[in-house]
Amino acid sequence: MIAVLKAGTTDKQIENLSAWIRSQGLDVHLSKGSVHTVLGLVGDTAKIDAELLESLDIVDSVKRISEPFKSANRKFHPDDSIITVGNTTVGGKDFAIMAGPCSVESEEQVMEIARAVKAAGATMLRGGAFKPRTSPYDFQGLKADGIELLLKAKKETGLPIVTEIMNANHLPLFEEVDVIQVGARNMQNFELLKELGRTQKPILLKRGLANTLKELLMSAEYIMAGGNENVILCERGIRTFETYTRNTLDLSSVPLLHELTHLPVIIDPSHATGVARLVKPMALAAAACGANGLMIEVHNDPAHALCDGAQSLTPDAFADVTAAVSKVLDAVKGL
Amino acid sequence: MIAVLKAGTTDKQIENLSAWIRSQGLDVHLSKGSVHTVLGLVGDTAKIDAELLESLDIVDSVKRISEPFKSANRKFHPDDSIITVGNTTVGGKDFAIMAGPCSVESEEQVMEIARAVKAAGATMLRGGAFKPRTSPYDFQGLKADGIELLLKAKKETGLPIVTEIMNANHLPLFEEVDVIQVGARNMQNFELLKELGRTQKPILLKRGLANTLKELLMSAEYIMAGGNENVILCERGIRTFETYTRNTLDLSSVPLLHELTHLPVIIDPSHATGVARLVKPMALAAAACGANGLMIEVHNDPAHALCDGAQSLTPDAFADVTAAVSKVLDAVKGL
Amino acid sequence: MIAVLKAGTTDKQIENLSAWIRSQGLDVHLSKGSVHTVLGLVGDTAKIDAELLESLDIVDSVKRISEPFKSANRKFHPDDSIITVGNTTVGGKDFAIMAGPCSVESEEQVMEIARAVKAAGATMLRGGAFKPRTSPYDFQGLKADGIELLLKAKKETGLPIVTEIMNANHLPLFEEVDVIQVGARNMQNFELLKELGRTQKPILLKRGLANTLKELLMSAEYIMAGGNENVILCERGIRTFETYTRNTLDLSSVPLLHELTHLPVIIDPSHATGVARLVKPMALAAAACGANGLMIEVHNDPAHALCDGAQSLTPDAFADVTAAVSKVLDAVKGL
Amino acid sequence: MIAVLKAGTTDKQIENLSAWIRSQGLDVHLSKGSVHTVLGLVGDTAKIDAELLESLDIVDSVKRISEPFKSANRKFHPDDSIITVGNTTVGGKDFAIMAGPCSVESEEQVMEIARAVKAAGATMLRGGAFKPRTSPYDFQGLKADGIELLLKAKKETGLPIVTEIMNANHLPLFEEVDVIQVGARNMQNFELLKELGRTQKPILLKRGLANTLKELLMSAEYIMAGGNENVILCERGIRTFETYTRNTLDLSSVPLLHELTHLPVIIDPSHATGVARLVKPMALAAAACGANGLMIEVHNDPAHALCDGAQSLTPDAFADVTAAVSKVLDAVKGL
Repeated sequence: MIAVLKAGTTDKQIENLSAWIRSQGLDVHLSKGSVHTVLGLVGDTAKIDAELLESLDIVDSVKRISEPFKSANRKFHPDDSIITVGNTTVGGKDFAIMAGPCSVESEEQVMEIARAVKAAGATMLRGGAFKPRTSPYDFQGLKADGIELLLKAKKETGLPIVTEIMNANHLPLFEEVDVIQVGARNMQNFELLKELGRTQKPILLKRGLANTLKELLMSAEYIMAGGNENVILCERGIRTFETYTRNTLDLSSVPLLHELTHLPVIIDPSHATGVARLVKPMALAAAACGANGLMIEVHNDPAHALCDGAQSLTPDAFADVTAAVSKVLDAVKGL
Repeated sequence: MIAVLKAGTTDKQIENLSAWIRSQGLDVHLSKGSVHTVLGLVGDTAKIDAELLESLDIVDSVKRISEPFKSANRKFHPDDSIITVGNTTVGGKDFAIMAGPCSVESEEQVMEIARAVKAAGATMLRGGAFKPRTSPYDFQGLKADGIELLLKAKKETGLPIVTEIMNANHLPLFEEVDVIQVGARNMQNFELLKELGRTQKPILLKRGLANTLKELLMSAEYIMAGGNENVILCERGIRTFETYTRNTLDLSSVPLLHELTHLPVIIDPSHATGVARLVKPMALAAAACGANGLMIEVHNDPAHALCDGAQSLTPDAFADVTAAVSKVLDAVKGL
Repeated sequence: MIAVLKAGTTDKQIENLSAWIRSQGLDVHLSKGSVHTVLGLVGDTAKIDAELLESLDIVDSVKRISEPFKSANRKFHPDDSIITVGNTTVGGKDFAIMAGPCSVESEEQVMEIARAVKAAGATMLRGGAFKPRTSPYDFQGLKADGIELLLKAKKETGLPIVTEIMNANHLPLFEEVDVIQVGARNMQNFELLKELGRTQKPILLKRGLANTLKELLMSAEYIMAGGNENVILCERGIRTFETYTRNTLDLSSVPLLHELTHLPVIIDPSHATGVARLVKPMALAAAACGANGLMIEVHNDPAHALCDGAQSLTPDAFADVTAAVSKVLDAVKGL
Repeated sequence: MIAVLKAGTTDKQIENLSAWIRSQGLDVHLSKGSVHTVLGLVGDTAKIDAELLESLDIVDSVKRISEPFKSANRKFHPDDSIITVGNTTVGGKDFAIMAGPCSVESEEQVMEIARAVKAAGATMLRGGAFKPRTSPYDFQGLKADGIELLLKAKKETGLPIVTEIMNANHLPLFEEVDVIQVGARNMQNFELLKELGRTQKPILLKRGLANTLKELLMSAEYIMAGGNENVILCERGIRTFETYTRNTLDLSSVPLLHELTHLPVIIDPSHATGVARLVKPMALAAAACGANGLMIEVHNDPAHALCDGAQSLTPDAFADVTAAVSKVLDAVKGL
């Protein structure tokens, strides 16, 4: 870590600051320029609060040289993490395809979709039981009943299930859930992350709407620091000024995260774009650039007006996507 | 609410959708153009999920005409909300000045700052006991002990206290806290908001880094829908591409929120800018454009290198800010 | 176009506004709700200034139903535009690969790179002669001499050349240039666009750093309205809060632009990411999601420290990218 | 300037890079850490291309310590620049108020507004003759005729005039214009900036929608490097995700720019917010935080529906704003 001091900083001030840095167990390298003095902090700087340091009157700016994340850091764990979920894996040779409805609505619905996505090549069933909604007046999900229905579908199809948690107090309901999802809005709900760190469940951690990749990795670090190393990262679009899409899918995050961390990275094109027609091209792009899997919304029930046109794909459209993804995966194998 | 249908939508599809809308208790006005058909949804559309509607294949786009927030809406509550906090108010004639340290560190520290900010005109003492930190390795606050210290300072100085909650399970610790703060990262932690809606405590709700004003008001609505109407809104900067400041303070939110809602609006220039030198000019600007108060970080302890230059103001600099703010408030009175 | 009027608008005001709309050659459909009145503007609304309309006191908001772009609009030109460039095409069956150095530096450099990229499958040679630089103290390009060198390389290799224009007064220098590039910073330099509309040269129009796709299409419209329909769109990353990459590559723009317009769309992964290691995965993703081509920076000269590590690919790395892109193109053919 | 080298960089590579840096006339300070080596570049680093350096394979990241702008830099010109415009100044004791219509439409219109804004305290008349419009089908301004009308209004009222240039070839038309405006979309039209640098006209340089303050200052530097030091900076809102306002006004830019540069800074609340009702509170905030002036849209013609509600203020509303601004300016004098 490097701290650039302001012009005019006195020797006394430099001495004080250096003493404080040493008291944190670090070495200090001093380098005086014609205008600025630069302090190099050498040692385990992960515990140093860069923001606090930068806020000092005598400090112009601070630059981290080593990354503040450790457990998630590729440097210290060169091999890819492979996370076992039921009879499948994420991060290894398998390409994970989590598919299912945005919200679990009824037994009939979830069963029908579960069978359809399994037939089309999904490796896991996803479905929302607890739903984070911007408005308190919108449908909040079937909650415990929704999880029950997912478990029924798991029993019948054998597909592991993925569903979102919003409150650590609900953890007992998630005992048989295979992957617990943390939604974008809770990516920095640190209290929730800490609780999940005390379990051994695979956690699907979604990137927040306005969070950097570094912040995503620091949130993974919260879970891993608690002892749970089973973290799957998920890019689902970031908030920008563009209005044609709900969010802007940041696909460069895939190769970047593969450099920075050993954790698997999956892509959610449904939420990122908010447009069913864009799911297929974005799924193909994700497969081409090295993603470890996809999360895709699939709905059944083409008879009703409301579902007719849902952003989710129909089972047939989903089957078309998985077939196309397979071809791309074959093409990029070994590239 | 208006739904613009896509070119080529069939009469049968329009009929189906209209039937569904009517089944939600609304009237439908149909207007056919040369290319597009437009449906007007008339009635209480707050419960209609615009995103779901927009995701239908036959729907080109949806436009809300009335705001989806009700309890927070100025239209239905034309008078300003005045929230009583101990012996002072927020939203009425008083200008709220919440001041204190970022983190409560020790009894000596909090007492000294409490006395100093009171002398300089603060109306409340703020201080962090539970600290949301990006890194699990950074200091997480004194927690329950921190609240104890704030209560001691309240007892001595009479200043009501404001402190952040991160977990609804901690609510019992906040019984004597005067204002409970919800931080920017938890603005859409809906489970926490619902729990706070069941209390009658004044809630200081901070705008999320990438949240629109509409989303801020929907989060206020979560609290108010539970029965707690004592919500104070706080703008603390949004995330943009500019790097000189930590965030970009959106001061136009002040007059805009005053139009949209009856809830009071305060400004946090310390977190918004991340630069102590910018706190004074931004505090003056906030006072000039009609904010109901300020939240300002103040630190003591000028002897230590680390504190010497903290982003927080010293008590003296804070006193200079409050004096200047008074002059601006006098100038804009009645404008 | 729909205009939602504010609550409380008088009949007299509605009449005045309707009269004005009719004076613009449009029909007005009036629809009164319980609170709001909605005006439908029917006819050729492309000439109506939505922003001006929205700024009226009695207007709450305005929503365009038809797109304001005409010449670029897929609705009126269902078939893909195929733009002929020398002996190759963009937008048809050929996949365009424009490769070459960021700046033309010397004859030796440009010749060597031209030969190398041709051998590796490039269909055009790109190179900067006039360079837009943030700082007036940075190298501004070889200018006319740079274009001369590109033309020499064209003569030898037969590759059509692409180079950027910054000033319409320089047009005479571009007479033998095959594709004229408009850089991101000049995307809304409307005076330049108008001048280029008076030529028949293929124009490569790059999306501005903070411009929406609609604005990109309106800028294409400036060129096309002048009579030049040979426009190639280029996505090269948008400005967001993420800092690991220089910009955020918005790949969903590819399928979206294909829906909205008949113009070809290419991707520039070099500038979008600013990181050589990310060029290959992003090039593969672009090929997978339907881009019509790529623009890639390639540099030679591995002996010098400065070039050793340039963001540009070496010719070998570029050949690896083109080979991999071919495989993905084969895989997605007909999907 | 500091360059952090990647782990694994060889001594040979460090030697090569150091030799190149020295060949640019700089000294190199080498500091080896346990993992990373850091090079300090000492001397006049303004000419070093940080982006190029950062793109080298062996370089992890680069950090500028001194600012890349020189002529605009407060460090080298501690006193405020005072720019004389006709009988008034910008940047000194006078508070500049530039007011007038968005577009010059007719002699009657511009004369009436000119008289009204003069009476209400404006120090300059602004008006658009050449209009940058997103759509080629929107009104592009009266052009040369518009400038003629502004000059007539100047003759009668004595108010200096401000109007926008879009093409350096139009410069002869601007001979009697007092302040030439460069619009946000042309902030990085470097060819235009260079031409303006060859004049001695005061230039009002507007910040681009997605440009950092550093980029704004580099664009000022383009003008100043040519010999024209008469640059006035203007903040007019940046593009964010918020939709209630057209842009987000970044008022913290005022005190920040005052730190970084000696050039005057004015605020345009009309364009920043796009909402007439927000002009007054934002004008007061700008005055409170130290802006050197304002640019405000004022329209006359209350009889026509279209103008009735324009985003521009009426002359009366404008007079109310100037009176209120005066009170705030008095209050903050000497604070």
